[in-house]
Amino acid sequence: MLAKKLLAIISLFAAAKASSQIESSLNLLPVPKNIQVQQGSFTLTDDFSVAIHEPGADTIVVKAVNRMYQALNRRSGLYFKRRYISSKDNSATSALQIHVTKIAAPFIGVDESYSLTVTSDKIILNAPTSIGALHGLGTILQLLAKNDTGEFYFPGVIIQDAPRFPWRGLMIDVSRHFMPLDVLRRNIDAMATVKMNVLHLHLTDNEGFRIESKVFPQLQNKGSNGDYYTQAQIKDLIEFAEDRGIIIVPEFDMPGHTKSWFAGHPELASAPGPYEPGPPVDFHNVQQMNMSTIMQLVTTAPFPAFDPSKESTYQFIDKFIAEMSGLFPSPFIHIGADENNGVVWKNNPDIVAFMQAHHIENTHALQAYFVSRVREIVKKNHKQMIGWEEMFSKDIAPDATVQVWQNSAYTKKALEHGNPVLISKGFYLDQFMPAYIEYKNPELPDSNSSQVRGGEAAEWTEIADKTNIETRIWPRAAAVAERLWSPASVTDTDDMYRRLFAVSEQLDEQGLQHIADYERGLRRISNEHFDAVKTLADVLAPIRGYKKLFAQLGKPESVSYQTAPLVQVSDIVFVDSRVKWQFRNAVRSYLVNKDAASEAIIMAFLVRWQNNHEQVKMLFAYSSQLKAVEEHSKNLAAVSAIGIDALRKIKAGGSPDANWTNEKLAILKSANKSYGETELCIIPEIEALVSQRLAPLPASYPIL
Amino acid sequence: MLAKKLLAIISLFAAAKASSQIESSLNLLPVPKNIQVQQGSFTLTDDFSVAIHEPGADTIVVKAVNRMYQALNRRSGLYFKRRYISSKDNSATSALQIHVTKIAAPFIGVDESYSLTVTSDKIILNAPTSIGALHGLGTILQLLAKNDTGEFYFPGVIIQDAPRFPWRGLMIDVSRHFMPLDVLRRNIDAMATVKMNVLHLHLTDNEGFRIESKVFPQLQNKGSNGDYYTQAQIKDLIEFAEDRGIIIVPEFDMPGHTKSWFAGHPELASAPGPYEPGPPVDFHNVQQMNMSTIMQLVTTAPFPAFDPSKESTYQFIDKFIAEMSGLFPSPFIHIGADENNGVVWKNNPDIVAFMQAHHIENTHALQAYFVSRVREIVKKNHKQMIGWEEMFSKDIAPDATVQVWQNSAYTKKALEHGNPVLISKGFYLDQFMPAYIEYKNPELPDSNSSQVRGGEAAEWTEIADKTNIETRIWPRAAAVAERLWSPASVTDTDDMYRRLFAVSEQLDEQGLQHIADYERGLRRISNEHFDAVKTLADVLAPIRGYKKLFAQLGKPESVSYQTAPLVQVSDIVFVDSRVKWQFRNAVRSYLVNKDAASEAIIMAFLVRWQNNHEQVKMLFAYSSQLKAVEEHSKNLAAVSAIGIDALRKIKAGGSPDANWTNEKLAILKSANKSYGETELCIIPEIEALVSQRLAPLPASYPIL
Repeated sequence: MLAKKLLAIISLFAAAKASSQIESSLNLLPVPKNIQVQQGSFTLTDDFSVAIHEPGADTIVVKAVNRMYQALNRRSGLYFKRRYISSKDNSATSALQIHVTKIAAPFIGVDESYSLTVTSDKIILNAPTSIGALHGLGTILQLLAKNDTGEFYFPGVIIQDAPRFPWRGLMIDVSRHFMPLDVLRRNIDAMATVKMNVLHLHLTDNEGFRIESKVFPQLQNKGSNGDYYTQAQIKDLIEFAEDRGIIIVPEFDMPGHTKSWFAGHPELASAPGPYEPGPPVDFHNVQQMNMSTIMQLVTTAPFPAFDPSKESTYQFIDKFIAEMSGLFPSPFIHIGADENNGVVWKNNPDIVAFMQAHHIENTHALQAYFVSRVREIVKKNHKQMIGWEEMFSKDIAPDATVQVWQNSAYTKKALEHGNPVLISKGFYLDQFMPAYIEYKNPELPDSNSSQVRGGEAAEWTEIADKTNIETRIWPRAAAVAERLWSPASVTDTDDMYRRLFAVSEQLDEQGLQHIADYERGLRRISNEHFDAVKTLADVLAPIRGYKKLFAQLGKPESVSYQTAPLVQVSDIVFVDSRVKWQFRNAVRSYLVNKDAASEAIIMAFLVRWQNNHEQVKMLFAYSSQLKAVEEHSKNLAAVSAIGIDALRKIKAGGSPDANWTNEKLAILKSANKSYGETELCIIPEIEALVSQRLAPLPASYPIL
Repeated sequence: MLAKKLLAIISLFAAAKASSQIESSLNLLPVPKNIQVQQGSFTLTDDFSVAIHEPGADTIVVKAVNRMYQALNRRSGLYFKRRYISSKDNSATSALQIHVTKIAAPFIGVDESYSLTVTSDKIILNAPTSIGALHGLGTILQLLAKNDTGEFYFPGVIIQDAPRFPWRGLMIDVSRHFMPLDVLRRNIDAMATVKMNVLHLHLTDNEGFRIESKVFPQLQNKGSNGDYYTQAQIKDLIEFAEDRGIIIVPEFDMPGHTKSWFAGHPELASAPGPYEPGPPVDFHNVQQMNMSTIMQLVTTAPFPAFDPSKESTYQFIDKFIAEMSGLFPSPFIHIGADENNGVVWKNNPDIVAFMQAHHIENTHALQAYFVSRVREIVKKNHKQMIGWEEMFSKDIAPDATVQVWQNSAYTKKALEHGNPVLISKGFYLDQFMPAYIEYKNPELPDSNSSQVRGGEAAEWTEIADKTNIETRIWPRAAAVAERLWSPASVTDTDDMYRRLFAVSEQLDEQGLQHIADYERGLRRISNEHFDAVKTLADVLAPIRGYKKLFAQLGKPESVSYQTAPLVQVSDIVFVDSRVKWQFRNAVRSYLVNKDAASEAIIMAFLVRWQNNHEQVKMLFAYSSQLKAVEEHSKNLAAVSAIGIDALRKIKAGGSPDANWTNEKLAILKSANKSYGETELCIIPEIEALVSQRLAPLPASYPIL
């Protein structure tokens, strides 16, 4: 009994120690389910060796070990004596011992758990399946640290890990802007790094049909500008993803969002053609609209949709889904089913007659009929159906997964109806919300019911293309990944941001283009003044919500958002400024501790910002992109001067007089405006210096 | 007669004007055959339109126009009213009028000429073939300029252009380090930008067999670590290249350089197995060797080679070449045939007996016999054979192309024998020679004989991998491209460098990773001190010649160069420092003009460099990579101080005393050493400040 009590005390102590050490030294993202930091560490040397014990040869774990070898090799600069292993390497003397109970390919519900122990002379990774082992290898790589003398080591830890949700997805819209395969491969690598496991490809939409059909080749030939994935390419991509523990779920959006299908097959449409791929309606006036006009547009516009009254429609879908079911091994097929307002159905007398004949009382019921017909086809091909929330109706089969994106009521309704749900509401990356907003997403049900499959970060690409999509998705998606993997109790925003920027470096190192694309975008507009332009851009963020989208849609000079060049500063800058967080952390620390180190950091930033406008101002006449953010450059100088003043007052001691404070806060408030669809993101921290109090971050921001 | 004289005078005048204007404003690389700069310019606006007149639909020219639209769109930030055209767009009112006489795919000898006229209201591009039109479109894109008010325009020009040589190639070794497809695609895009037209893939070598054979799958399965191109991927790549006017010539190196073949097929080898892919011999001691020992190693080591005495060898090659001839549409097949020293043949009694029976007097004659047998196979498949210079023998068929890489005598011998030649000697990018050395390559024959097909830049990849190959090849390969395209009279090195760095920006803009990889490499070793590390790295260059290769081969801790991490500073920095050229140009100008602008540039560099060591010195304990160049950092501070002194003395007037000069030149000389396989590249310019005279660049450097 005494022994047990003692053990409990020791483990409490260990836990406390672990938690403080995690904050100070470990960069794991997502945070594991259980972690105890131990004394000691394992030093990485050139004779680092790996043994694998598993019931199979040449598995995905062997490949993953060899990728890890390369990563360790590059990061450490060591000349490893071994850098490749095969399944025959199973020596008990090797430093890293991997035990896999069962060979498995990735699937939803596979046991993804693993346990990992690092001591000073051994690293033991145990996993019930190959997939758990992949995650464990990822954790090992993230554990690698460097001490002050440049030596690399793995800190001593005991980890038991398993995901909170079995579905941790990223949706990429490849229709509005096509994404080349290397963009997808880099995203898959990044997903694997943060233990995501589903890449949901939105392959078809009004603007482009992006997958080769051999049965109906006009789909891609007339439904795209030539940019689509061939079936051979998709097979390669699926293998690439599976090797990294990721499945690819294809989406073929229907009955709406189907204009590109109709370019080659107008006979499928509810209204006569001809069609060509492109936006479903003219969006030019959207920027001038208020909310109710926009809602009216969305409910009254004749968005193209399949004709659900013709048997030939289902015969076509039947052949198409059969072909795609053969191509994609995923047991899930996503049928979209979103944003179909029924207007074209009501406008077509034949469809109206069909509804009357079949006692279908409204277009909602007609959509439910369509969905039930498609579900039969999907089921016949041994697949499970997924759709966006509008797919749900009270008559839907309970095996259909409902992906909630806009209306939380659907979560409740679907769960009550027995349907599995996926949460994407609150995870829409294209809404430009800072990572902490997605991190604290209130939409995720508390329930541990297996009906809640998990969620998906979603990147729609009306205003993202191959040159900036990696900056739009990463590193923010890592916050979603942690929300879906780590226990619900892991909620420390500051620590999440610390690790988010660490993982961002890891992603950069492994070849993701987010930082490279950011800097390339700035180089293009900055000539020889790159440093000064970057100093400004580093503290700008795109305005939150759909304002940037509407600004882009509404440009009267743009034929469609697909022809708009995404070269504005707002297209280039990150949603989460790393510099903002460095500054914020220094301000927070300084307000509490008045420490010289934080003061020096704050002062260095403020002085640099104050002087920066002089460095860039000659560029504004030369670059229309920079011109759009000129006011921010002026304001940055002005608010930095206020910050310097405020810092002096804090050092002088006492509280500043209220007049000064109010005057400065008013100036700061007036600088807190958007220009060129960007905002200056360090104003809250300068306000904190003025008011000597750091306000918490807003809990939410309006989407519109 | 008078009229003719007058015309001649006018065109002389025009030429003089053209040449001065090229220097000041045009960034064309390669320089066209004939260019006259005209008054006026064409302003790019959002209603820029293109018409195409050609005898065919959906051609490579239409695709190229659409790529150009995207590039113009991104560069200008304009919202074009049209951004895609089809072959139906042929309105006479469009701004850009393209006339193509004949649809053509790329092939060696296709008419690549074009003429281009830009006036204030029209751009006319005429080309006899699709390929000429592609080149013309590339020129249009390079002509795009921006005036001081941020407006984009094409300067008025009349251009008649055609290449000097029909074969302007880049060879990439994908065996020693495998290069993913996106690396190849980015290289193809870059090649097209500088009008190169042949990508020569060195697909097989001792270290890896990188192409899928369906007939003999053990070739890639056992001959690689899993990294190879599938046939489907190669088909995609060929189409991607053809769209850009580039053919892909495959190389299957034989009879030597074949260890990876023997891993799966030991029966082909001249000595018993087993084999696995890897370096042909142990190179560990090479760094300690002198030149004669190295030569001895090369002539006496038992390098693996095919057994040329067995009929079964030719039966195998016959089936393999037939398969590859079907896969690669290129009319050329490269069979390597280099560096086979015959040792394994002499060691094999059966082969010796075969030689005696067939009156083959030595291994050179046996190689000639092997080559003649392989040529029959190549010819049977309707292909032409290419090989490295050692393929040549007096009995070789005159249709075989000889690629000279080491011994100029082969150029003469092959030409006299009637064989076509390709020059790679002097174009070996992996020798780390500055671009001007390749630019002035004396190996290219003056002859305009069609027997001289052209040349190829060559990048062997013992010490280059996917993370740095783009910095190894680009922008230097553009200097080779110009040498092979532009008239021999175009030789101005300074102007070449000006345009080289401009084209480097263009390559960055279109997605090449050279700058991104450089900066990513530096980020990895610099923590938060990126700017200071970059300031140092910007003035470092890898040591020239094979010293770095030998240093890498000879690392006793490395199992082979394939397991060595390429993360040293010498793996990261560019061969041609842009900063060096900025500094050099300012020094040159200042020594002539004593102008304040140049003085300010020089001083800004020197002060920054003098202070930089203080900024980075704390990193040396932390990073072994930086530690290796610590002396350079110290020396940079020291030589910059000398430069500042020298600048003061020049300003003071008169010539400095000889003692001071000699003392400082001695210090500079002692700083001109290599550390960590890099050199400080701005010493000649500081010497120029000290001696008040800028010495010309050395005409050559030793390779060893």
